[in-house]
Amino acid sequence: MVQLTCLSRLLLRRKFSDLGVQFASPDQLQPKPDVNALQFGKHFTDHMLKIYYHESLGGWQKPQITPMENIALHPGAKVLHYAVELFEGMKAYRGTDGKIRIFRPDLNMDRMNRSAIRLGLPTFNGTELIKCMCRLVSIDREWVPHSEASSLYIRPTLIGIDPSLGVAACDSAMLYVILCPVGSYFDTKSKAISLLADPQYTRAWPGGCGDKKLGSNYGPTIAVQQEASQQGLQQVLWLYGEDHLLTEVGTMNIFMFYINDRGEQELVTPPLDGLILPGITRQSILEISKEWNDFKICERHITMKEVIELTSENRVLEMFGAGTACVVSPVGSISYLGQTLQIPTTEWSTEPLYGRVLRTLTDIQYGRVPHPWAVPIDDYA
Amino acid sequence: MVQLTCLSRLLLRRKFSDLGVQFASPDQLQPKPDVNALQFGKHFTDHMLKIYYHESLGGWQKPQITPMENIALHPGAKVLHYAVELFEGMKAYRGTDGKIRIFRPDLNMDRMNRSAIRLGLPTFNGTELIKCMCRLVSIDREWVPHSEASSLYIRPTLIGIDPSLGVAACDSAMLYVILCPVGSYFDTKSKAISLLADPQYTRAWPGGCGDKKLGSNYGPTIAVQQEASQQGLQQVLWLYGEDHLLTEVGTMNIFMFYINDRGEQELVTPPLDGLILPGITRQSILEISKEWNDFKICERHITMKEVIELTSENRVLEMFGAGTACVVSPVGSISYLGQTLQIPTTEWSTEPLYGRVLRTLTDIQYGRVPHPWAVPIDDYA
Repeated sequence: MVQLTCLSRLLLRRKFSDLGVQFASPDQLQPKPDVNALQFGKHFTDHMLKIYYHESLGGWQKPQITPMENIALHPGAKVLHYAVELFEGMKAYRGTDGKIRIFRPDLNMDRMNRSAIRLGLPTFNGTELIKCMCRLVSIDREWVPHSEASSLYIRPTLIGIDPSLGVAACDSAMLYVILCPVGSYFDTKSKAISLLADPQYTRAWPGGCGDKKLGSNYGPTIAVQQEASQQGLQQVLWLYGEDHLLTEVGTMNIFMFYINDRGEQELVTPPLDGLILPGITRQSILEISKEWNDFKICERHITMKEVIELTSENRVLEMFGAGTACVVSPVGSISYLGQTLQIPTTEWSTEPLYGRVLRTLTDIQYGRVPHPWAVPIDDYA
Repeated sequence: MVQLTCLSRLLLRRKFSDLGVQFASPDQLQPKPDVNALQFGKHFTDHMLKIYYHESLGGWQKPQITPMENIALHPGAKVLHYAVELFEGMKAYRGTDGKIRIFRPDLNMDRMNRSAIRLGLPTFNGTELIKCMCRLVSIDREWVPHSEASSLYIRPTLIGIDPSLGVAACDSAMLYVILCPVGSYFDTKSKAISLLADPQYTRAWPGGCGDKKLGSNYGPTIAVQQEASQQGLQQVLWLYGEDHLLTEVGTMNIFMFYINDRGEQELVTPPLDGLILPGITRQSILEISKEWNDFKICERHITMKEVIELTSENRVLEMFGAGTACVVSPVGSISYLGQTLQIPTTEWSTEPLYGRVLRTLTDIQYGRVPHPWAVPIDDYA
């Protein structure tokens, strides 16, 4: 860890001020897609940020912004064999005042460094990387949709590129950032999503790394997501253990708003026990709710048995997923061991909690309400 | 699956006979490393095999052998974000008769296809891929070490290359094969390896995919392997659950040879319960042992409690790991919750079982004993 800290300092000293920029030539510029027809992750902007790390060259190299282009990797690169890869998901929002803001980027940087340690990849100085990313977004600022239903998705990625087989820590890595204008994450006509909760599949487990944003947490979920699609369902609700604990939904954290045993409204979400990703939207929802002080809030385990009992007593008011890509996504039903539980999320009230949460977060993100969580990118320069 | 089967047939029909070869030019040829100084996975041969899959173009494309070269990937390629990647490990051996053989490749192909299904990647016809790989090895045949302590490691790799973010099945994939002359997998002076068994880390779990050869099973192990190295130990013995079941050791299956309650010699190895990789060396050792009929054989769970009791009664004779990369690797000690268990694997007998197993397997692989498991590559053409 001593060594990593040193190299982190090296990055701190050299990074943003060393940033080199190579602008795309006119023929490299891509047409911008229709903002009303954006599909998640299909369109990329004109530029990208790259920072190489080579232990043999003293650690982190000069950051470079270049035209968006393919990456050349040795076929033996560890990222291609052993999933030595991790990422983050962030967004830039074009505010009602014309300013482009990013949301709590320091939390993404902290999580990304925790992920890096878990894979034996080098850590870096988050503040400097935020500055470099803001410069990248600034260069591609015309790609930030002029729409409050859309945003520019930011994908920092860190991969191990040592050209050698054998499961071992990397001496060379590449940190890069790409940008995508995005609309809604889910391609759904109805607003509330349907979930498959099948206890035969597990996403993460104690002693594993379900609380890190590693590539290895995602690939194995694809076949289960296909299974859900084949059943006409939209996402997977991941259960864990004999009690069928609710852990995550698709790529989101999960919340339940219900009437507790004392007749009070209560918002619950699974605790950060190592099985779930410590979501930044999750954390923000908990912090906002505590500030409101309008209902009870609890981080605790939720079992499927409890959900079944509560729904049968009409005490579940809402369930929703929360994450950067989807923001807040209401849940309409859960398919579980042959039964379908209907969740009245979008129907029980004209002012559901998920809507209030969504509005509050987007008010901050799009600058409708000034808030320290959303900082204009030009302030980072 | 219907679609996959069709495409698999497409590959069958087109593949080996369609194989295109682009030979490396003289200036692209690499010097061959000293056979006595081979490090695992550091040296690559002059050529590689590539087969692209594009659903939009009807599935698998023409296989090509090209000079060894970098792979160009879109920075949004799913392999770089979501660990949509899997591989196999095989070897080609230069026999005492000069013929080059591969060992039970059909088993690798079957496992690779099971891995592909688990990640939503396309399956393929294994027989045709074996033919293409044999042609590749034949072209680079001078890279197969002239040594019975070395071999040519074959690494078939399948990655998802769709240039789009979002956790979803791939419409485009790349199957490639690279080759490395290799010596011993472990860089160890003493023959018997030392293991760290720390129950706070888990490799795989029920409902996951520990029984598939996916990249996602390896990246998360690197930090734990670093922990072992810091403690001066060579590999990790992966435990599972409250009973601290032995599952795998490093990248190998594990075997224990001991005196059972009835005073008989017995070889045990954990069962294929979904937590461990169904190793081809493991399967071969079980099959050979059954043929010998010299001792009891059992596939069953082994707990650390049992290992402690048996060692205290001097009833553990040997423990060894088994896998393609290491073949058979004797275990000398296990560090577990503050105690060190000494395992007399290399010391209890002048003719230990692990040595007999190793000799039998290598006799087959190097053609010293004719056997249907080891087929000369020229027979596949």
